[in-house]
Amino acid sequence: MRPLYHPHPDEITVQGILYALSDPVRVQIFSGLLASDCAKNCSTFIDITGESLPKSTLSQHFRILREAGLIRSERKGVELHNRARCEDLKERFETMIDGILAAYRSELGKRPRRKQPPRSS
Amino acid sequence: MRPLYHPHPDEITVQGILYALSDPVRVQIFSGLLASDCAKNCSTFIDITGESLPKSTLSQHFRILREAGLIRSERKGVELHNRARCEDLKERFETMIDGILAAYRSELGKRPRRKQPPRSS
Repeated sequence: MRPLYHPHPDEITVQGILYALSDPVRVQIFSGLLASDCAKNCSTFIDITGESLPKSTLSQHFRILREAGLIRSERKGVELHNRARCEDLKERFETMIDGILAAYRSELGKRPRRKQPPRSS
Repeated sequence: MRPLYHPHPDEITVQGILYALSDPVRVQIFSGLLASDCAKNCSTFIDITGESLPKSTLSQHFRILREAGLIRSERKGVELHNRARCEDLKERFETMIDGILAAYRSELGKRPRRKQPPRSS
């Protein structure tokens, strides 16, 4: 089984982080991991968009977050357990990442909500 | 001649800005426009990387910055005159953009400098 690639803290780049966070689904996954005290399986996030994501799409999102240095993944059996790399990001990137997440939250708050389908009674 | 597309301020997205700024050359162009009081031609930036960029590459960088809502371009004869859209970005994006530019500056500061070629005397 191929080892998982994690960049050394010195190899994490602004460019890589911006690319990884330029996708709203990856931002939601990363925010979920930041807010969590414990490591989370990829499959925890399968319904994150409100619709079930294909497993391959989800895996690719996790790979991009991992290779940008935003998360660390460990194999446990057939699952990957993922955490945000808070300590490695803190000194150089915390202000930028906080700014990005705040801008996304403000954008989501402004977006008109989807109409709920009428309940069948 | 095709009109230049500029998104309305309400259509500018975090995602679009992050994608546009995930390239260091575009960041240098955008920083140059932010720091300038007057509009600048694309060709001003042709040597921005230290080597002459192909005109088509430069045009594409300006198009991506423009379509993300970061700059406004106006045709003057055969040239485009470009400015940063400071007013349109201020309220929603200023903190995030400042964080990104600061992180890039800090990264550039850390990068080992290229050796200067020996002077011919």
